[in-house]
Amino acid sequence: MSNEKQKAVVLVSGGLDSSTTLAMAHDQGYDCYALSFDYGQRHSSELLAASRVAKTLGAITRKQVSLDMRAIGGSALTDDSIEVPNVLMDGAPTEGIPVTYVPARNTIFLSYALAWAEVLGAAHIFIGVNAVDYSGYPDCRPEYINAFQSMANLATKAGVEGRKITIHTPLIELSKAEIIRLGLSHGVDYSMTVSCYDADSEGRACGHCDSCCLRAEGFRAAGVNDPTCYQ
Amino acid sequence: MSNEKQKAVVLVSGGLDSSTTLAMAHDQGYDCYALSFDYGQRHSSELLAASRVAKTLGAITRKQVSLDMRAIGGSALTDDSIEVPNVLMDGAPTEGIPVTYVPARNTIFLSYALAWAEVLGAAHIFIGVNAVDYSGYPDCRPEYINAFQSMANLATKAGVEGRKITIHTPLIELSKAEIIRLGLSHGVDYSMTVSCYDADSEGRACGHCDSCCLRAEGFRAAGVNDPTCYQ
Repeated sequence: MSNEKQKAVVLVSGGLDSSTTLAMAHDQGYDCYALSFDYGQRHSSELLAASRVAKTLGAITRKQVSLDMRAIGGSALTDDSIEVPNVLMDGAPTEGIPVTYVPARNTIFLSYALAWAEVLGAAHIFIGVNAVDYSGYPDCRPEYINAFQSMANLATKAGVEGRKITIHTPLIELSKAEIIRLGLSHGVDYSMTVSCYDADSEGRACGHCDSCCLRAEGFRAAGVNDPTCYQ
Repeated sequence: MSNEKQKAVVLVSGGLDSSTTLAMAHDQGYDCYALSFDYGQRHSSELLAASRVAKTLGAITRKQVSLDMRAIGGSALTDDSIEVPNVLMDGAPTEGIPVTYVPARNTIFLSYALAWAEVLGAAHIFIGVNAVDYSGYPDCRPEYINAFQSMANLATKAGVEGRKITIHTPLIELSKAEIIRLGLSHGVDYSMTVSCYDADSEGRACGHCDSCCLRAEGFRAAGVNDPTCYQ
């Protein structure tokens, strides 16, 4: 089946995973509509990265939606009263659900993607969730994604009219090293991407947070040069 | 079972249905946390009504979240290029899915409710959806609500830790007249509520839109005085 004229909404944060996902969706022939969120994250330089990534990797357009996540709170990423863990100071990454987990974040993100998909007439949504490295996040698991897809098909005009909406998660079972090798094979320039929870205004990484450690370990395990810019 | 110490997030728009829902949740003994959305709706006087309603009907607090729904578009309620239907000019309410349907709106609303519930440690969410008068809206149907609840229990810490989240829809199978009678029995003062899609800045209703017609017919069918203020 040719997907050449099929539209897909692709969640693009500017990080490593979503950039890889966009490259894959584009190479599969989808017309990609990139969707980013300004949700009061500490690492807003991610959004500049999202803009660069969307342009470079062939998105038709990119929409950025402002979300009022600080109003909800409950995460180190959106609530100043909760500290982002620092592996060098605090030891190994926390077990269980990390404090960087933003309550219902992927549900809110996918809900907006669903809304835009409905307006565009798109039947495909891509999200770069990963159950391996982020196994502590409940909303990165395959059973969650399947449940969201079932709900999405009951929530929308498309579902009522029999056009099935598919949530694609091409990275869900991959290790960080596998994601990096896959992205490189699709031409992703990872120097454009920002993963750090505490990046500075120029997108340079702290090198110490959970996300930096996962990323650096991924490049090591993949056996490729790490192009990350550090502070 | 006493629910006296149970927390519930209650979606409160300031309209007739959500006000009735809040009164019911409160009378069932829940500590009610009212959640409203400023989503660029034309009828922003609803939000003033939401504030009055939450105070009067005993909510512990009310949070108002700004949503960037105009960025998504696709509905007469959030997109200025789509006209709100006027029954007097255009004839009977439209069949099928109305132009006032906001794509994935209830999914986005419930996602925020889920996020706040997680932060609060609340296991209950109340939403005043109604499948009878709004049968054209896919996201007002029981099968949709059930699917959202299943997804919610996979999306969250609560679900992972075995605390089940319940989505309550006490109005879902009721007619507008039944809702009004029920609300009156719970002490709701409907003069405080705003249902109109085109209300003026003082909350006075147009009397012509689908929502006004449903509401007026509801009061007629319930055989009670209609306290709605018209322009």
